[in-house]
Amino acid sequence: MITSTANAKVKQVVQWQTKAKERKKDQVFLAEGIKMFGEAPENWIREAYLTNEALEKLENQPQLKEKLNRIPWETVSDEVMEKMADVQTPQGVLTVLKRPQYNVEEVLKHPNGLYLVLENLQDPGNLGTIMRTSEGAGVTAVIMNKTTVDIFNPKTIRATMGSIYRVPFILEDDLQEMIQNMKENQVKIFAAHLLGETYFTGCSFQTPTAFLIGNEGNGLSKELTEMADSLVKIPMEGKLESLNAAVAAALLIYEAKRQRS
Amino acid sequence: MITSTANAKVKQVVQWQTKAKERKKDQVFLAEGIKMFGEAPENWIREAYLTNEALEKLENQPQLKEKLNRIPWETVSDEVMEKMADVQTPQGVLTVLKRPQYNVEEVLKHPNGLYLVLENLQDPGNLGTIMRTSEGAGVTAVIMNKTTVDIFNPKTIRATMGSIYRVPFILEDDLQEMIQNMKENQVKIFAAHLLGETYFTGCSFQTPTAFLIGNEGNGLSKELTEMADSLVKIPMEGKLESLNAAVAAALLIYEAKRQRS
Repeated sequence: MITSTANAKVKQVVQWQTKAKERKKDQVFLAEGIKMFGEAPENWIREAYLTNEALEKLENQPQLKEKLNRIPWETVSDEVMEKMADVQTPQGVLTVLKRPQYNVEEVLKHPNGLYLVLENLQDPGNLGTIMRTSEGAGVTAVIMNKTTVDIFNPKTIRATMGSIYRVPFILEDDLQEMIQNMKENQVKIFAAHLLGETYFTGCSFQTPTAFLIGNEGNGLSKELTEMADSLVKIPMEGKLESLNAAVAAALLIYEAKRQRS
Repeated sequence: MITSTANAKVKQVVQWQTKAKERKKDQVFLAEGIKMFGEAPENWIREAYLTNEALEKLENQPQLKEKLNRIPWETVSDEVMEKMADVQTPQGVLTVLKRPQYNVEEVLKHPNGLYLVLENLQDPGNLGTIMRTSEGAGVTAVIMNKTTVDIFNPKTIRATMGSIYRVPFILEDDLQEMIQNMKENQVKIFAAHLLGETYFTGCSFQTPTAFLIGNEGNGLSKELTEMADSLVKIPMEGKLESLNAAVAAALLIYEAKRQRS
């Protein structure tokens, strides 16, 4: 059992927990809690850290006990877990995972793909919620540029509620190139935009579809807006200037789901 | 100009900023930023605090300048503003507002009301986002019990993006009594529920409608679920257990809006 917060492994986890650069350098991310351990694909897991109390809980669940038998893990003291965890009252399980790699060409070849393209989103909770809702709506992949908030941020991972394991995502340097690529793959590009002329419930999303979602404060850039085949509008009463980015994305992808089922 | 963080007014604002009890005792809430000042109903404003830099910005906007002429305000040093503000990089305007009081009976007498009833929501961002989306969808009022997170929490106020000023809301001790009252006013009660038998896009929300939304972790209580006229389901692909509460609320109220327009 690791009982010292000066232990090298503990120090490493703290680095990963607090620094996006460190996570990137080692191509890892962290997930906290029993549920996130239970749902993690086994071949993504590098190692897990557990308190004795959490170990007992896991050993009482046959599937989780078997999973533990097949991966490297160590127990840590409560004090060490508190040091390593991002949340204030940790559940006692911290999983270190390798980052997945999805193939763009494969993702775009889906016969009836549904995509979200995120430009410069800044709120970790929004990004996590978008991943979560994307799983619910059956989104093929979520694509984001590298100036979007780190998808491996602990807050984002938590907000995905496990969808990070199941919804393919792609980090892109150049979204314009990506959108061009999508167009060549017969994906129709819609931008949620205040200047849209058609309400989103009046458009057809039954063929391969991508929705472009812009930054929370500034909306979608002119460059990406101009690449859209169509600007769609989400109607708003009152004096509101815009909806929350995760809400706007949810309304669009669930409308696509409704039309497709 | 107030330049000392030991000033009694500054101390009072800090109390309001950090303690729900203090805000409640004095029946106030705080809103930060120029936009939140500009949109605030004048008769809600108790006083405003501004940095010199912010004052200059406001005086360059005729409407805001006139508004300043009609309310009590004081300038404060940057250091004092940093002390009083909730955000790390304050915009230099902090508005102290009286809490509004809405009349339940009036709210329920709307000829074609659309209501959200929130039970024990715990995330301030979710609550703010729900207020914001409610304005967009034209919700008549948002009703919540008193164990729901404080709607006057600075994070919630920020997430409303000004909707706090425009969407009527009611804090209730007893939601069961409230729902009974709604039923007597011919409001049909729908609960978003995993056990729902009808998809939400297959229900009619064209008559007076209320949606019950439960706590993020535990869902809706048995007591409230049993009071619903109908359990509706939001379809979900993948292995997801639920959607984010603000997303679920958004899908339901926007479906009602779609059906009504």
